[in-house]
Amino acid sequence: MSYKIAISMGCPAGIGPEIIIKSLNELKDYNKYFLIIGDKKVLQKTAENLNLPLPNTEIVSLSELDIIPGKPTIEGYKAMAEYFQTAINLAKEGKVQGIVTAPISKEGLNKVGILYSGHTSWLAKEFNISDYAMAFYGDKLIVSLVTIHIPLKEVPQSITTEKIYKVCNLSFRFLQKLGKQNPKIALCGLNPHAGESGLLGDEEEKIIKKAVKICQKEGIPVSGPYPADSIFYWAYKGRFDLVVSLYHDQGLAPFKLLHFEDGVNVTLGLPIVRTSPCHGTAYDIAGKGVADPQSFISAIKLALRLLKN
Amino acid sequence: MSYKIAISMGCPAGIGPEIIIKSLNELKDYNKYFLIIGDKKVLQKTAENLNLPLPNTEIVSLSELDIIPGKPTIEGYKAMAEYFQTAINLAKEGKVQGIVTAPISKEGLNKVGILYSGHTSWLAKEFNISDYAMAFYGDKLIVSLVTIHIPLKEVPQSITTEKIYKVCNLSFRFLQKLGKQNPKIALCGLNPHAGESGLLGDEEEKIIKKAVKICQKEGIPVSGPYPADSIFYWAYKGRFDLVVSLYHDQGLAPFKLLHFEDGVNVTLGLPIVRTSPCHGTAYDIAGKGVADPQSFISAIKLALRLLKN
Repeated sequence: MSYKIAISMGCPAGIGPEIIIKSLNELKDYNKYFLIIGDKKVLQKTAENLNLPLPNTEIVSLSELDIIPGKPTIEGYKAMAEYFQTAINLAKEGKVQGIVTAPISKEGLNKVGILYSGHTSWLAKEFNISDYAMAFYGDKLIVSLVTIHIPLKEVPQSITTEKIYKVCNLSFRFLQKLGKQNPKIALCGLNPHAGESGLLGDEEEKIIKKAVKICQKEGIPVSGPYPADSIFYWAYKGRFDLVVSLYHDQGLAPFKLLHFEDGVNVTLGLPIVRTSPCHGTAYDIAGKGVADPQSFISAIKLALRLLKN
Repeated sequence: MSYKIAISMGCPAGIGPEIIIKSLNELKDYNKYFLIIGDKKVLQKTAENLNLPLPNTEIVSLSELDIIPGKPTIEGYKAMAEYFQTAINLAKEGKVQGIVTAPISKEGLNKVGILYSGHTSWLAKEFNISDYAMAFYGDKLIVSLVTIHIPLKEVPQSITTEKIYKVCNLSFRFLQKLGKQNPKIALCGLNPHAGESGLLGDEEEKIIKKAVKICQKEGIPVSGPYPADSIFYWAYKGRFDLVVSLYHDQGLAPFKLLHFEDGVNVTLGLPIVRTSPCHGTAYDIAGKGVADPQSFISAIKLALRLLKN
């Protein structure tokens, strides 16, 4: 089977160019599968500074910028948006089957009039998808999120039986695509001790348990809700393949504890594969040659795996 | 210096007797420092079943029960309450300087008319202390909690600048007692990305940052608020000695991921030292000889360390 993965270069002044050069030099055997969408001049200069060859990969060069690493510009912001939009267009045309995104600046997007909060919501809109979810993949722990970037006080009113069911379902499909046999999914409770039978909060009884029932009825292998203070330990120990978390920090604090360096962000529910590293543009270390490509390498490897299965 | 640590036996039908016998056999050199308050008959039988000697430790035997492990009784509940109350009384009289508690059943307490939610609130009442906090100690991570057993939806309205300040202060004193030089304390934000400058919640701006300022003014080495998804990783990597968490699962999910087996619960703010294992009565495995004493051993070692310093 033949397929292509678009790699969007992200903000030219961030660590995107550096981690792309480093990653593709590590993944030489796979370079034929990639298509970098970015700025060839920036990539060339970055490769020279790193004393590494430019990878033997097709490059769609959409800009020709003079960049000072760590100093983002409006031109750079516009370019990073164009790289990503082009990747989306190629995916829609079937010319690429996956997108791996190097980090963009959300502030930068807003400065050039693009009001998406990031890659994920942008993709959802472009593919006209309302049922999607953010998940985080590592070899020790996989989590998905029911709610993402909302204040903690809005979490209890935002979790509905339907939303939880949908994220559980997307999580199940994801595990299937990973080739997991008989996957097991754990669902977190919202309250301490998962509500302790209603003593410490009623969302488990009123909302969350219903979602588990619906899932089980439909053959989605979800159990819970489990106390969120110990379920990540049990997943790490192998009792579960994935933990569905109800809010951002519930899932991400345990995840990053284990996978800060090599975790992968993956969007569930899209018609294409999309992964990214967990870190941001890291302007503070851009151009210094010290950016760790591990999370980006993991993101590419996961995209390859999802496309192969 | 001479001191005594009271070890209250907890529910006789739980794993308390077993982990006490196992722990004190591991800690033979320290047995002179301990005073077990419980049931000599139950301890003797447990030791026989484990094929271990009864530790060479003073035992205050307050009951003489026939127990089937895993089958708690009203007599057992009454006895476990008496063991603990006696430990408190001895502490008040200055006859012991620390208490290490084996697990009790909160349901059992309630069944015999004792309405404390557990050891911690019981101690606070007996010592007439309102400023206390629950902390969790491990060699990889130490956390303390600003709120504990309340529904998640009540957390945002429950965290006040004063409460946060108090827990930071107690946490600082704790680190000093541990003998940490130049301790560094990280304070968690409440919202994703610690509120992202108010975009994802306003508690950081309105409540939490004020507590940091007060702490710093008083020489309490607290910084933050930090995004809770990554701060535990940085503490684990050594940048901080302790993470003050705003709610139960925020602190305990990361903590238990690293210290499920050997974590210690410690009460801050009491005039005496008090530690306990993180697990409960574990009736399901009581009497089977498989209970892991690691957390209890760690609890005793921490009590010894706090009394020595």
